[in-house]
Amino acid sequence: MAEDNTIYVGSKGVMSYVLAVVTQFNQGADEVEVKARGKSISRAVDVAEIVKNKFLDEISIDEISTKTENLKNDDGSESKVSAITIKMSAPQK
Amino acid sequence: MAEDNTIYVGSKGVMSYVLAVVTQFNQGADEVEVKARGKSISRAVDVAEIVKNKFLDEISIDEISTKTENLKNDDGSESKVSAITIKMSAPQK
Repeated sequence: MAEDNTIYVGSKGVMSYVLAVVTQFNQGADEVEVKARGKSISRAVDVAEIVKNKFLDEISIDEISTKTENLKNDDGSESKVSAITIKMSAPQK
Repeated sequence: MAEDNTIYVGSKGVMSYVLAVVTQFNQGADEVEVKARGKSISRAVDVAEIVKNKFLDEISIDEISTKTENLKNDDGSESKVSAITIKMSAPQK
């Protein structure tokens, strides 16, 4: 069964998400997806870079993809927002 | 000879960078790199998504990579900052 190894990056401090990703890998996850939307995208990139460079040397960034999502506003109108997914993975054993 | 088809995204409005990318492709560029650092990373993703979805359907995002750069501060100390490169390309003719 696939576990849900997705970390959604929002407006909290960078280190809380870094810790969440590191914890997932330390608990044996082979792959973790770091996701964010809008202005949090920069923070998601920081999270991935800090995990890779400061905490877990052996973890690599496999693939980064972006898309545009439609968000419903309170008044029923729609706004478009960019989203990013950063796939990080542990080395194959 | 390789032309320099790199657009550096900073703190200006998104549309000025979108226009710069669209202009490069309209002038015949096969590939354009959109680059940004720090908080501008989110804007760079917006630029790429808007170019692809609103202006140039046939343009694709080929590869996205991130890295950590060292910036020298005025006092001589160094700060680390995340950077992104988004490679966009026109279809092969």
